[in-house]
Amino acid sequence: MYTSPQLLEQINNYISALSYTHSPQSLYAPVDYVLSLGGKRVRPVLMLMAYNLYKENVAEVLLPAIGLETYHNFTLLHDDLMDKADMRRGKPTVHKVWDDNTAILSGDAMLVLAYRFISDCSPVYLKEVLDTFTQAALEVCEGQQFDMDFEQRNNVTEQEYIDMIRLKTSVLLAAGLKMGAILGDASAEDTQYLYDFGVHIGIAFQLKDDLLDVYGDPSVFGKNLGGDILSNKKTYLLIKALENADEKQATELTSWLEKEDFDPQEKIKAVTELYNQIGVRLVCESKMREFYTKGLENLSLISVAEENKRELRALAEHLMYREM
Amino acid sequence: MYTSPQLLEQINNYISALSYTHSPQSLYAPVDYVLSLGGKRVRPVLMLMAYNLYKENVAEVLLPAIGLETYHNFTLLHDDLMDKADMRRGKPTVHKVWDDNTAILSGDAMLVLAYRFISDCSPVYLKEVLDTFTQAALEVCEGQQFDMDFEQRNNVTEQEYIDMIRLKTSVLLAAGLKMGAILGDASAEDTQYLYDFGVHIGIAFQLKDDLLDVYGDPSVFGKNLGGDILSNKKTYLLIKALENADEKQATELTSWLEKEDFDPQEKIKAVTELYNQIGVRLVCESKMREFYTKGLENLSLISVAEENKRELRALAEHLMYREM
Repeated sequence: MYTSPQLLEQINNYISALSYTHSPQSLYAPVDYVLSLGGKRVRPVLMLMAYNLYKENVAEVLLPAIGLETYHNFTLLHDDLMDKADMRRGKPTVHKVWDDNTAILSGDAMLVLAYRFISDCSPVYLKEVLDTFTQAALEVCEGQQFDMDFEQRNNVTEQEYIDMIRLKTSVLLAAGLKMGAILGDASAEDTQYLYDFGVHIGIAFQLKDDLLDVYGDPSVFGKNLGGDILSNKKTYLLIKALENADEKQATELTSWLEKEDFDPQEKIKAVTELYNQIGVRLVCESKMREFYTKGLENLSLISVAEENKRELRALAEHLMYREM
Repeated sequence: MYTSPQLLEQINNYISALSYTHSPQSLYAPVDYVLSLGGKRVRPVLMLMAYNLYKENVAEVLLPAIGLETYHNFTLLHDDLMDKADMRRGKPTVHKVWDDNTAILSGDAMLVLAYRFISDCSPVYLKEVLDTFTQAALEVCEGQQFDMDFEQRNNVTEQEYIDMIRLKTSVLLAAGLKMGAILGDASAEDTQYLYDFGVHIGIAFQLKDDLLDVYGDPSVFGKNLGGDILSNKKTYLLIKALENADEKQATELTSWLEKEDFDPQEKIKAVTELYNQIGVRLVCESKMREFYTKGLENLSLISVAEENKRELRALAEHLMYREM
């Protein structure tokens, strides 16, 4: 069994060795830039861990794992353009370093490159691996669209929100785990359990992100705190706050959402204060733990020795209790 | 053997029956809109014709053909956004009907959908079909990037231009033909001849487009004449005009390229007049025929009965002598 840092190292070594130096550089330099920004590489690590439950030679399935990471970075590139985000992982985004058209076209090329990597697997599993990836890739687009649609709405329900983050975040983690299981020749039951584990952990992971944006430690959290509050993002915290607020709290919260002119720090402070009064931090933490627990249940049902699941369990735990 | 209109009908029937009515409609309605705008469906028709040289049951490979058309329409959607084009096939473009973000994300979804259709082929051929498509899809991105890069340059050479249109236009036609050959179980030689036929016909097809923009019949040409002239597009005509102009003509042509304030019709008239004086229409027509002839030579080398090649030959001829 490989440990998480060993798998990460294999992934990062492969990505560093990729050469995007061919012509036209105006197309490939941004691809190289985005992939070099780093990150936790959670999707390929999960895929390799799932595979490693059944087979040892993880180097043989490194390319589909790199494909998953390439796809994920493509979504960040296009999402940052759509969200007009200036920074990503402490560096200016592609449309800031280059321009909008470069971000569109380099992103398109990355999506094709992702398919190229993912197709590079044993022909026995190719169709199933491809179908799993394609389904997730389409659902991620749906999730991003729901997320953008929600910006225009103040009546997003908890269920709609959970569905959206399932599509936008979870299904790709789940698809990675499923791809690892397929390539590892796991049983249909194990494959499904691994997929479900990914869905549940993914939702918990996104709820943790919502929490960190408000309650994270600014010295370790990668972004500035309160970004979601400033952009009125329909997070779980905001949705539950709107749902559970009393009349006075609702009026105050709504007035902050509608205010066009405000001091950013003042808005963050006031909305956080309202969240604290309404008590949504605990509500969110409890929902997060609910999904985390479901994920661990899925993991426990997989028919491999318990001690072999320790890396997956440790990674899930790390994602839940991280401070960044 | 199926005729061109019979194949087109099968393709259009399939596209009309596609239902993009599921949620989120903000993602799928633009996909439906773009695919419904029609067009000649040249890529899937070519693929089915190549297949039909070897096998009869074209309905069996309709899905990869639909995938090619979906991919092509994705490129139009994103290209129109990057070019800020308002109209496509007589209708407002997606970013005009909806907005830029919708055009980005619906396009992304179309690229994934294209892969879904293309993967829907016999597992025996899947890897080869996928690799052929992926290679072309990446080259199309490269071609579009070169095209955009050329906008900033006045020293584009003839060879660079031919390479660019090969990538941007030809390789997808060629890949479609190759995919048809692979699925039809053609020999490696025939597969390569069909690919080369597509490359050569594709370059001729694009040169014809350059000609039609200036010398087309305005009553039948789908777009307004002179669009390339107004946007200083580095077409074959402009590149050869800059290359062959005498000093006086060069000065006049350059001054029109640099002019920021002008009457559109006056610029079109003056540049067309210069093209006529320099004689680039004949140069372009001769280059077009050169590639067309090369394509027909490739076709003649394919080892199937000559009379079975008539649909491919007729389509190539139609593309060359069309007035729109």
